[in-house]
Amino acid sequence: MVTVQKILTFSSSERRQLIDITTEVHEFVSNGEVRNGVCIITVPHATAAVISNEHERGLMSDILTKIEDLFPESSRYAHNAIDDNADAHLAASFLGHSRTFPVMDRKIIRGTWQNIFLVELDGPRSRRLVHLQVIGEGA
Amino acid sequence: MVTVQKILTFSSSERRQLIDITTEVHEFVSNGEVRNGVCIITVPHATAAVISNEHERGLMSDILTKIEDLFPESSRYAHNAIDDNADAHLAASFLGHSRTFPVMDRKIIRGTWQNIFLVELDGPRSRRLVHLQVIGEGA
Amino acid sequence: MVTVQKILTFSSSERRQLIDITTEVHEFVSNGEVRNGVCIITVPHATAAVISNEHERGLMSDILTKIEDLFPESSRYAHNAIDDNADAHLAASFLGHSRTFPVMDRKIIRGTWQNIFLVELDGPRSRRLVHLQVIGEGA
Repeated sequence: MVTVQKILTFSSSERRQLIDITTEVHEFVSNGEVRNGVCIITVPHATAAVISNEHERGLMSDILTKIEDLFPESSRYAHNAIDDNADAHLAASFLGHSRTFPVMDRKIIRGTWQNIFLVELDGPRSRRLVHLQVIGEGA
Repeated sequence: MVTVQKILTFSSSERRQLIDITTEVHEFVSNGEVRNGVCIITVPHATAAVISNEHERGLMSDILTKIEDLFPESSRYAHNAIDDNADAHLAASFLGHSRTFPVMDRKIIRGTWQNIFLVELDGPRSRRLVHLQVIGEGA
Repeated sequence: MVTVQKILTFSSSERRQLIDITTEVHEFVSNGEVRNGVCIITVPHATAAVISNEHERGLMSDILTKIEDLFPESSRYAHNAIDDNADAHLAASFLGHSRTFPVMDRKIIRGTWQNIFLVELDGPRSRRLVHLQVIGEGA
């Protein structure tokens, strides 16, 4: 039984932004020592999230707009008496800080249109961490 | 340490539909080689999801109505310039493509009212895959 | 490969309430036999959830208000013909019944502002269970 972990760093340029990390996840899993198991993608942040969906420019814009619609910026949040990013915390709480994928033969099992995105909710930020982990049977 | 995986196929008959897969998950876990560990239920689709809640006809209708309320069909989504299912992608992004349950003594730990559902968001479809996996200690 | 499980019991005093369980999760992981692996926090309930975000009084109030805004109480839910808590089931379905964290050197990897909360959605209740599990490599 093997556990492999890796921490990646990304930067964001917008307040809300989808950053496609599918390639990095694939490289991590295909180069790792785990043949069959689970891959968990986590952000150690309270104003970021991880989601999986299609990498299509229009849809990526729709996702960000929907986040803004459901969790709009507002001075009425109680948290904004001491900060200015309650909307980002709220969206992160609902979207979730991690996603899990099965791993078979050193590949994550995912659909053709299931790319993996780091969701920036309170950018721009120079340092957003993504923690990659596979756990399972070794080669 | 053991990993067991199985892929099931379901078909849907409605645009939005909850398909109860609890029995299939139970059979998979109780027949498997893993005594204690984790069960992960995943859909490799960008317009489907997995949730857990009560199998009560009224509630199942309420869940589908709530999905439609929060993620309504609309021609205004940017994705719909090239397709017609942005609402399904949005709901899938928020609901998530997988759920995880602990396994003890070859049974998933879940509440009495926690059934497991494949959520069809862009049906009807003849072929929706559900990937079942248990990982943990062997018998 | 080791699996360790523990069930904790909490009580709630409000209909909707965030109960911080971070200390309990830390103790469980630091005292356990798993050095590197995964920690899964699960509620076996259809009207409760688990989320992770900042323990700030204002924000915690904002999160509960947002849950109420998105999933308001109403006599119009079909489930409420036989019960009175459809809003709680709906919120639980969307928020999810579990969260997963990586474990390294007997510590869960999380951000400074990522506390872990049991989300009561249909309280007050005297007995809400939280299932803690770590799975991974032993010491």
